[in-house]
Amino acid sequence: MRLLLLNGNTDAAITAMLARHAAEAIPRLGLPAAELDAVTAAFGARYIATRAAVAVAGHAVLAALAEHVGPDNPRGYDAALIACFGEPGIEAAREVMPIPVVGMAEASIAAALAIAPRIALLTGGALWVPMLEEFALVRGHGRDRVLVRGVTPTGDMIARDPDGAVALLAEVAREAVADGAGAVVLGGAGLAGLAARVAPSVPVPVLDSLDCALAAALGGRTLAVRVAQAPAVGLSAPLARWFG
Amino acid sequence: MRLLLLNGNTDAAITAMLARHAAEAIPRLGLPAAELDAVTAAFGARYIATRAAVAVAGHAVLAALAEHVGPDNPRGYDAALIACFGEPGIEAAREVMPIPVVGMAEASIAAALAIAPRIALLTGGALWVPMLEEFALVRGHGRDRVLVRGVTPTGDMIARDPDGAVALLAEVAREAVADGAGAVVLGGAGLAGLAARVAPSVPVPVLDSLDCALAAALGGRTLAVRVAQAPAVGLSAPLARWFG
Amino acid sequence: MRLLLLNGNTDAAITAMLARHAAEAIPRLGLPAAELDAVTAAFGARYIATRAAVAVAGHAVLAALAEHVGPDNPRGYDAALIACFGEPGIEAAREVMPIPVVGMAEASIAAALAIAPRIALLTGGALWVPMLEEFALVRGHGRDRVLVRGVTPTGDMIARDPDGAVALLAEVAREAVADGAGAVVLGGAGLAGLAARVAPSVPVPVLDSLDCALAAALGGRTLAVRVAQAPAVGLSAPLARWFG
Amino acid sequence: MRLLLLNGNTDAAITAMLARHAAEAIPRLGLPAAELDAVTAAFGARYIATRAAVAVAGHAVLAALAEHVGPDNPRGYDAALIACFGEPGIEAAREVMPIPVVGMAEASIAAALAIAPRIALLTGGALWVPMLEEFALVRGHGRDRVLVRGVTPTGDMIARDPDGAVALLAEVAREAVADGAGAVVLGGAGLAGLAARVAPSVPVPVLDSLDCALAAALGGRTLAVRVAQAPAVGLSAPLARWFG
Amino acid sequence: MRLLLLNGNTDAAITAMLARHAAEAIPRLGLPAAELDAVTAAFGARYIATRAAVAVAGHAVLAALAEHVGPDNPRGYDAALIACFGEPGIEAAREVMPIPVVGMAEASIAAALAIAPRIALLTGGALWVPMLEEFALVRGHGRDRVLVRGVTPTGDMIARDPDGAVALLAEVAREAVADGAGAVVLGGAGLAGLAARVAPSVPVPVLDSLDCALAAALGGRTLAVRVAQAPAVGLSAPLARWFG
Amino acid sequence: MRLLLLNGNTDAAITAMLARHAAEAIPRLGLPAAELDAVTAAFGARYIATRAAVAVAGHAVLAALAEHVGPDNPRGYDAALIACFGEPGIEAAREVMPIPVVGMAEASIAAALAIAPRIALLTGGALWVPMLEEFALVRGHGRDRVLVRGVTPTGDMIARDPDGAVALLAEVAREAVADGAGAVVLGGAGLAGLAARVAPSVPVPVLDSLDCALAAALGGRTLAVRVAQAPAVGLSAPLARWFG
Repeated sequence: MRLLLLNGNTDAAITAMLARHAAEAIPRLGLPAAELDAVTAAFGARYIATRAAVAVAGHAVLAALAEHVGPDNPRGYDAALIACFGEPGIEAAREVMPIPVVGMAEASIAAALAIAPRIALLTGGALWVPMLEEFALVRGHGRDRVLVRGVTPTGDMIARDPDGAVALLAEVAREAVADGAGAVVLGGAGLAGLAARVAPSVPVPVLDSLDCALAAALGGRTLAVRVAQAPAVGLSAPLARWFG
Repeated sequence: MRLLLLNGNTDAAITAMLARHAAEAIPRLGLPAAELDAVTAAFGARYIATRAAVAVAGHAVLAALAEHVGPDNPRGYDAALIACFGEPGIEAAREVMPIPVVGMAEASIAAALAIAPRIALLTGGALWVPMLEEFALVRGHGRDRVLVRGVTPTGDMIARDPDGAVALLAEVAREAVADGAGAVVLGGAGLAGLAARVAPSVPVPVLDSLDCALAAALGGRTLAVRVAQAPAVGLSAPLARWFG
Repeated sequence: MRLLLLNGNTDAAITAMLARHAAEAIPRLGLPAAELDAVTAAFGARYIATRAAVAVAGHAVLAALAEHVGPDNPRGYDAALIACFGEPGIEAAREVMPIPVVGMAEASIAAALAIAPRIALLTGGALWVPMLEEFALVRGHGRDRVLVRGVTPTGDMIARDPDGAVALLAEVAREAVADGAGAVVLGGAGLAGLAARVAPSVPVPVLDSLDCALAAALGGRTLAVRVAQAPAVGLSAPLARWFG
Repeated sequence: MRLLLLNGNTDAAITAMLARHAAEAIPRLGLPAAELDAVTAAFGARYIATRAAVAVAGHAVLAALAEHVGPDNPRGYDAALIACFGEPGIEAAREVMPIPVVGMAEASIAAALAIAPRIALLTGGALWVPMLEEFALVRGHGRDRVLVRGVTPTGDMIARDPDGAVALLAEVAREAVADGAGAVVLGGAGLAGLAARVAPSVPVPVLDSLDCALAAALGGRTLAVRVAQAPAVGLSAPLARWFG
Repeated sequence: MRLLLLNGNTDAAITAMLARHAAEAIPRLGLPAAELDAVTAAFGARYIATRAAVAVAGHAVLAALAEHVGPDNPRGYDAALIACFGEPGIEAAREVMPIPVVGMAEASIAAALAIAPRIALLTGGALWVPMLEEFALVRGHGRDRVLVRGVTPTGDMIARDPDGAVALLAEVAREAVADGAGAVVLGGAGLAGLAARVAPSVPVPVLDSLDCALAAALGGRTLAVRVAQAPAVGLSAPLARWFG
Repeated sequence: MRLLLLNGNTDAAITAMLARHAAEAIPRLGLPAAELDAVTAAFGARYIATRAAVAVAGHAVLAALAEHVGPDNPRGYDAALIACFGEPGIEAAREVMPIPVVGMAEASIAAALAIAPRIALLTGGALWVPMLEEFALVRGHGRDRVLVRGVTPTGDMIARDPDGAVALLAEVAREAVADGAGAVVLGGAGLAGLAARVAPSVPVPVLDSLDCALAAALGGRTLAVRVAQAPAVGLSAPLARWFG
């Protein structure tokens, strides 16, 4: 398979980091081998953190997809992955693209809701909170189903100092669990790779938004999560084993 | 891969039909080759069409999964697919199963919403309508997002006389499109295989719920659907090509 | 009147406790005298606290109603009361039962909403929280209207050590009041009889879910709750008396 | 028992008609015998059909309850029934009244939702439609759960020519059934007594709003409604009987 | 322009205070000069703080508008402003009034939502909280969009001791900001004039509900609120200036 | 006052038409005299009718505002009006603009909801329907409150042949009234000026989206709409006059 990884931010260091994380994640997740082309949006904010930056990025994402895929997809991509959480322009891209377009927030929400009925999205930058709530809302998920939580440092700050962010992210994730979240997504290009470090101190599954998008693009599957059962009577023998 | 296909209905003829359709669908959908084991629920209604039948089937699905997978999955299944649209017991199964559990309605809703912001589920048996609306609602999708439409013949009647049902299903599908649905799911074990025959007379994509569930279980990807664009000015050359 | 009291849990000690509480409650609530038959589900979890246990209980409740009432109700019951909060199988039972079927959660929600526009359900066992939220949601009550709160001990633990639970329940009830609940339901077979002990330290009415279900089954009425009024001018003399 | 029946309209002929229908309904519904006092609001519209009339009626209802019950209820009423569908002032009355206050719309919605997950309220006067939708909404029931339908003649026109209204009401009721309503309420003082005449040509239960309010005030119970089941296998013998 | 300012409370001291604040606000807000007639409701609660008082006030507001404007508006008012937050009777008044009718809560919600996607209404008197939530709900704004917060002292208590209330109001406003409110309305006749004193210790705009209503009645405009942007690349020179 | 009128479409003929309609509307609506500068977006679709065109227009609107207003507003505009219904980039513009930014859809929804509890937006181009529904949804208005209806011709087709569109628009407007809309907005730059021609054959107020936006930008007021009342008794003499 061949996958276009498009960074909607204009910071090429983030693109390189995303490519590195993706190359590591694909075998770890048991996904089919894929050739990855990582490209950077040509114009717009270095790291998208405001509505104005999102408005510009919608255009920039379309322009980049036009350049790298175009109407005829001469390089034969199997899918495009918009590597920006809240994926500006994704629905516009779907109108014109000849191949599937996957986004990090969409894929993460779907993956997390397959695990638990209420989930949390945790990202960098407070201004993303209402934007992601609206993103979830127009996809049918109200604020009592998809909790959105932000930490003050933006995603690029976190990417530059991941060690400093792990404890803060874990704390906010635990607060979301206390509010009923049964799974937590660490969302954003800048947070790629941190889920594994945050997970040990959070009592529910912690998902990486890049992992989720890769699995959606390349064909991954749901996690299994088990719950302890109390004793029961009168059941078939195999069923009774589950009820301990 | 190895997949357990569990028919929640107790009619083995439906199970055989599901296995036949699944074997045909996997290569057609470009999914990884998989060994399929098709099993039938041991007790409950021959074809589930009422709340009472659903209540019994929740237990029967758990009991069958306990028997064929159990806590330790000795046969090494990669996933279980509950082949009953509205999949009784799926959330209960997820509490106890050591492998992912996929359901036809859940997978179909996710696949269709990736194509269009409003979709329709079309199934056999009028009593399924409120049950599927509730199914969608507890997953965050209100009735203005996931339209549920029923035809009077139940799924098993349709399975026994598919030729007679095609025109009726196409008509109800077109009515759903007139109500704003941008994709239509033909849902139910009894309707497996009919989407290809209904699709030619419906102006939006028509999905087969078994196809959707197989793709979710074995790793499939979103469809690409394109929209014609009006002329534009001042864009980059590649982007302008999309705007004709 | 003759009432069938069906414990959806398979622990006969809980059934005996429910029967005792019901016999005490009927005269206390001013309900018509009723002959009570208390029966226990024949299979399933000893105390229902997970989705898997609920899935089995839906079948078990139907099977018990079939055994004790059946299509023809030879013993002449006037109503059946499913004594399990979140009442597995109640809508299925209503499809087939020749007599009214009352559930503890449904009756409690209705009784509490007649007192206050926002209410809280408080029960034992954290896994019940999302299940009861979904229960309320499919009946039209969102999470901002019916607050669901759980304490960690499950209902059967509370039933075995009620003295230890009273302070905890009162504390969580007061938190729900701080979140805007104008009435609190103590829900669950295991919590029957505790409302009177919790109420003195909670500033809004505290309802017992068994009381609510008995009143719904045997014909009870709404509570009157009064609010102090400020002085007013220009009103009729009788009306002015209410405005102090 | 002693019941105050308060007509919020100022037309005494409607009050007399309500008293007559209530006296007939109580034994028909198997409710406890009750002494009925029917009184008429002292000021406001002859028949309430606009928001301006509702605004005045809120005051008039309070003033009448103050006069006939007052803070001390010297005549010993057990409950008050506001016999106006959409019951102006009911929540205000509950703040001050020493006895339960029942309303026709509230009681009808509760009774109908105990029968079916989606119901319709059908009343006279087009301006009532948005008012009743808001009435349902603040009680937690959206427009996809409680359908509100109006016929052009107002309730007092219908009361003066019930024969002329039966066919129209039946037609609109059937349209509501086609929109998914599983029970229909004929709402309004002017429509009291018509449900029995409309019901034969409507395929779901048709409820009289005065009946529902009387049952709520005096202690009535839910209807039993049964659904035909398909054959099933592997069930206990009594349960299998229900699955024919 | 000529504006009728109607105090729905029956305390003339509040009316005088409202007139004083309005005369001061009109030039401060840059609104067109207007002749103000301030009148007091003739009957009802001195300060409206309960549902019973609201029910009476709906009638009193209509009666006062009938007396001062009537069907023919002989004094030539351009608009009427119901100076009571939660404006009893406003929709009824609109049915009959020959001129626009503006309310404090409606105007405040609209003004605040033009600034931020989630806002808070902060008022005196705990019983107003559910009433204002319902007020917002029937206008389409759920509790996750319009947060309603109350302080224990009622509006008239605050009007008599504004100095004592400023710190409390600021604290509750800050809590609402922590819950995501991007603008806070101080609502109620008794709180008129306090926004300027509360604003310095609140990090988002604090609006005065009388200001908002005056602007809606006399023609005011939205505030501009700016957000800091991160650096961006590839933009036009003027656009790049905004991205610093 | 000085107003920047920004056409988000790139067709200058539409800009000229908008300027002509605005110049005519300001005195007709009784708005303050204003100097109007009408400008055209520099890049993007000639007439915006798809999500891809909207994505580009968000950037183009920001770029045009940056060019004509900039951070310092040297020409002294009092407000900017984005003359494109569904106003791409409006929330982004508000983050950076030093002056208020008004949009046609936002202003129209607010103006129409001040007249009626359920309204319809009617525009050209079927693809706008889901986009405007999402626009309303993130502003808190569900599909049962703001009905969105599209006609097949896009706005620019309608602008080129308005005579041909009037009958079609009136028909769809009447259908929306039959679905409960109490006011209808004709939305879109291409439909400016048609409301007056459509209104005579529609039984509820028909609003022009450019009029609504101009009133919001320059300070307009709500319409008064009256409802006939039935006779009433016991009211004050002035109030009784309204109840005929």
